Amino acid sequence: MELFYAYKLADGYVYLDSEESTHCIRVLRHKAGDTICAIDGSGALLTCVISDASPRETVARIESSSEGWGSHPYRLCMAVCPTKNIDRYEWFVEKAVELGVDEIVPLIGDHSERRVVRTDRLHRIAVSAAKQSLKGAVPEICGPISVAKFLENLPEITDSELRLIAYCSEDVMPRESVADILQKLDSGATPRITVLIGPEGDFSQEEVRAALDAGFVAVHLGPSRLRTETAALTAVEAVYFSCACISPAYDSANAPQPTD
Amino acid sequence: MELFYAYKLADGYVYLDSEESTHCIRVLRHKAGDTICAIDGSGALLTCVISDASPRETVARIESSSEGWGSHPYRLCMAVCPTKNIDRYEWFVEKAVELGVDEIVPLIGDHSERRVVRTDRLHRIAVSAAKQSLKGAVPEICGPISVAKFLENLPEITDSELRLIAYCSEDVMPRESVADILQKLDSGATPRITVLIGPEGDFSQEEVRAALDAGFVAVHLGPSRLRTETAALTAVEAVYFSCACISPAYDSANAPQPTD
Repeated sequence: MELFYAYKLADGYVYLDSEESTHCIRVLRHKAGDTICAIDGSGALLTCVISDASPRETVARIESSSEGWGSHPYRLCMAVCPTKNIDRYEWFVEKAVELGVDEIVPLIGDHSERRVVRTDRLHRIAVSAAKQSLKGAVPEICGPISVAKFLENLPEITDSELRLIAYCSEDVMPRESVADILQKLDSGATPRITVLIGPEGDFSQEEVRAALDAGFVAVHLGPSRLRTETAALTAVEAVYFSCACISPAYDSANAPQPTD
Repeated sequence: MELFYAYKLADGYVYLDSEESTHCIRVLRHKAGDTICAIDGSGALLTCVISDASPRETVARIESSSEGWGSHPYRLCMAVCPTKNIDRYEWFVEKAVELGVDEIVPLIGDHSERRVVRTDRLHRIAVSAAKQSLKGAVPEICGPISVAKFLENLPEITDSELRLIAYCSEDVMPRESVADILQKLDSGATPRITVLIGPEGDFSQEEVRAALDAGFVAVHLGPSRLRTETAALTAVEAVYFSCACISPAYDSANAPQPTD
């Protein structure tokens, strides 16, 4: 299925940027009047008819819209300190989008070695992964923001929200695995889950205390010693298995096939 | 923790190859008489004293051995068709080792585009990941082997074994998610699990039939449409969560911290 990303949507028309337009018009040789499928990242699959087949900015009229296309039954915010090697973080972004994530926040921790992140590049990776995995929603790439600031900005925690910090020290010993805690979630509601993952040097004691004060629960990710990006993806997988995969509402007739 | 990989172990001595020796002697400036830690990939952590500090082949006498170091409570064989882009397969190997895997078999399917795999390169990646994640055992990298041959070579399935194929078509509709099936495993025994993951073009009908005849159960990996390597890692995560993470025997005092 060929899918285009619309950078703009206005008055019933979608607009493709020059890269998407070139691919659509020059490579795939679409013409005015052709039907194409597009997403604008807000969740819907848009079926459109090309009105202006310009390779600089293709414009197409929206004929129909299918909301919540490829959506998942939870709201997941992954607040993850970037890795020293940014390739590893970008890999995490791609995989998290494939599985299902709503917000990715590059956090700058007290012990972070990398303090600069190109969020535009992460956004492009997220768009590409959403197209690949047939999802109408592209997760928001926020920040970067310091751990302290991120925690300060959080609203009061609500009953339907779960805040988890993957951390372990002498003082704060996690009692439960992320999987055990997630299994206790009410399967009826759409849970909102926020997960904090620290940098290679882990969170500072102050950051952990601030997180616990903000309602975060310390969890462990099992017995293996995982790299930062593997820890982050393992948390996404735990949420995916607990909230999307074992749900009785899940229709196995739509089960996925491995794909390119 | 600095860990060396011993390519040979004989008569109570470990032998490091030229790369490991150079790192040990030239970079870290170890001398004869120094104590080092090594693994030979069979599962043990070996505490050794350097007897010959040669940068070409360092030799060290084994002083003590800790068996099953960083081991996991299951036996997992991942038989996965290589991706067109081999980087994606190599990434899977690294992540699978971090979480816990015992055997990786590059399978050549009827629809595989990539039919050549450098298993020596995959072995090096597995060694590096095992050192990084503090595991004494390095998974065996087998094959490459055709799907048909791999299935032919399998012994009769036993009661303590679970064989899963991630596949979905009109004819063979998986009824259960991989997570649901794994949750039913007897937590008392050490389960042996084999998972088949197809190439970008999926398994052929003949391959699926042969797998079902060999005792494989068709499972789905949840609602998301995953790339081959993400599907493979998701299966590893499902086994990790079901068999290692939620086990009551797991001691949370040894919970991991994210690491570089």
